[in-house]
Amino acid sequence: MEPYVHKVKYYECDRMGVTHHSNYIRIMEEARIDYLDKVGYGFEKMEAEGIVSPVTAVKCEYRKTTTFQDEISVELSVVSMSSLKFSFGYVMKCRGAVVFKGESTHCFLVGGRPVSMEERYPELHRMLVEMMEKGQ
Amino acid sequence: MEPYVHKVKYYECDRMGVTHHSNYIRIMEEARIDYLDKVGYGFEKMEAEGIVSPVTAVKCEYRKTTTFQDEISVELSVVSMSSLKFSFGYVMKCRGAVVFKGESTHCFLVGGRPVSMEERYPELHRMLVEMMEKGQ
Amino acid sequence: MEPYVHKVKYYECDRMGVTHHSNYIRIMEEARIDYLDKVGYGFEKMEAEGIVSPVTAVKCEYRKTTTFQDEISVELSVVSMSSLKFSFGYVMKCRGAVVFKGESTHCFLVGGRPVSMEERYPELHRMLVEMMEKGQ
Amino acid sequence: MEPYVHKVKYYECDRMGVTHHSNYIRIMEEARIDYLDKVGYGFEKMEAEGIVSPVTAVKCEYRKTTTFQDEISVELSVVSMSSLKFSFGYVMKCRGAVVFKGESTHCFLVGGRPVSMEERYPELHRMLVEMMEKGQ
Repeated sequence: MEPYVHKVKYYECDRMGVTHHSNYIRIMEEARIDYLDKVGYGFEKMEAEGIVSPVTAVKCEYRKTTTFQDEISVELSVVSMSSLKFSFGYVMKCRGAVVFKGESTHCFLVGGRPVSMEERYPELHRMLVEMMEKGQ
Repeated sequence: MEPYVHKVKYYECDRMGVTHHSNYIRIMEEARIDYLDKVGYGFEKMEAEGIVSPVTAVKCEYRKTTTFQDEISVELSVVSMSSLKFSFGYVMKCRGAVVFKGESTHCFLVGGRPVSMEERYPELHRMLVEMMEKGQ
Repeated sequence: MEPYVHKVKYYECDRMGVTHHSNYIRIMEEARIDYLDKVGYGFEKMEAEGIVSPVTAVKCEYRKTTTFQDEISVELSVVSMSSLKFSFGYVMKCRGAVVFKGESTHCFLVGGRPVSMEERYPELHRMLVEMMEKGQ
Repeated sequence: MEPYVHKVKYYECDRMGVTHHSNYIRIMEEARIDYLDKVGYGFEKMEAEGIVSPVTAVKCEYRKTTTFQDEISVELSVVSMSSLKFSFGYVMKCRGAVVFKGESTHCFLVGGRPVSMEERYPELHRMLVEMMEKGQ
């Protein structure tokens, strides 16, 4: 799959002249939404099916700084799955070098309570398992 | 009324080391919500009464830069009112000097259509008229 | 010139489900940087020539709301020029309708003091005059 | 030490009506700066001593959602230290309940290269060791 590309905006850089570290979490979200869209699970479909899938945890490793107008490409993959949770992994590259590695964990809520994705959303579950097996 | 105070955050400053100009619109919003809260029209009351009052226009004049950890104090006043619209004025000061002047215009929507504030929300209307007359 | 396109991000939408009004100022900045880049006055060139051109004023008119994943196209033009200042105009459209109109005013600083663009940066001045005459 | 308090802003909430998860990293930064200020290592002193201490990693655990006007109190402590790195831990509470747990890891750079904090900034090092021992 084509990596998602985020071009760093002027207002995303801080006093040190580098992309503020909080923005990588937003880029992770952009890439995740783009990815789900490409695999046929766009936000509209999620909303139509009433799928609410909040972020329960995030991990970020900042390897190198990036700055204004840099193009950050994001490779996303499914890194783990259980009945109640799954995690995406993110590798961000800029000018050939890895600048960031991250992970986000998600659950599924129905009426505010966690539910088994496998039982409740078997199609999405199957798709994510396939992605994980393909290393994507 | 006590002016609202916003202390500039590290992540609000840009590559030039100054508060990014987009953040003043957010500070205007903070001050406006604080002001309405103090005059007895807090966000919860607005929501409970179903009042939807979007921003229809904004004007900003940037006089001086501010930076990380500066304390910006915001003086807010009602500067104009008509049956369908009203405007707040904002004067922001830092270390004794005016750093910013702004204005925001708002209307009232019911079911997506503009309505007369005077007819629909007479209490709020009266209060804003009083504020305008008092020059607050 | 091709209009600049901004696709609304999830994190740019507020509790009402619409693009928060502060983000339009950021989209104006994105479009302005893109425009200057296309006409040969990219940010790097500006920085290399030591051009510091802060925003001194902004006007925003919010016509229609936009939301997550909307593609906003921005048409930019030079709307006024004097020896010390110039203004860009912005018309943003989404699905055929005008959603936003704005204006930003800029000056040129050298050592913190405003200077005449015509004298100091004649090439950039000529280019902006041409743009204004062409209605771009 | 008094916990740092962040009151959630309207523009920090997303379409789901809750504080967008990216903002917690910003609140961590606010609390960290406030903490260092209180223990006598304010940003100005850091800058004056040429201390550059970037974030190298972040971990976030989202326990409960918060929303507009919630007051989030942040307890910060030093959770680990080595010669080249140290980590802060963050516990955020709202209305008595833990809503967020996080960790941030930092190094010290001189001329872009990591240096030993103990050798280079013995006063700051001693202070952080004390904080860690006191469980603060």
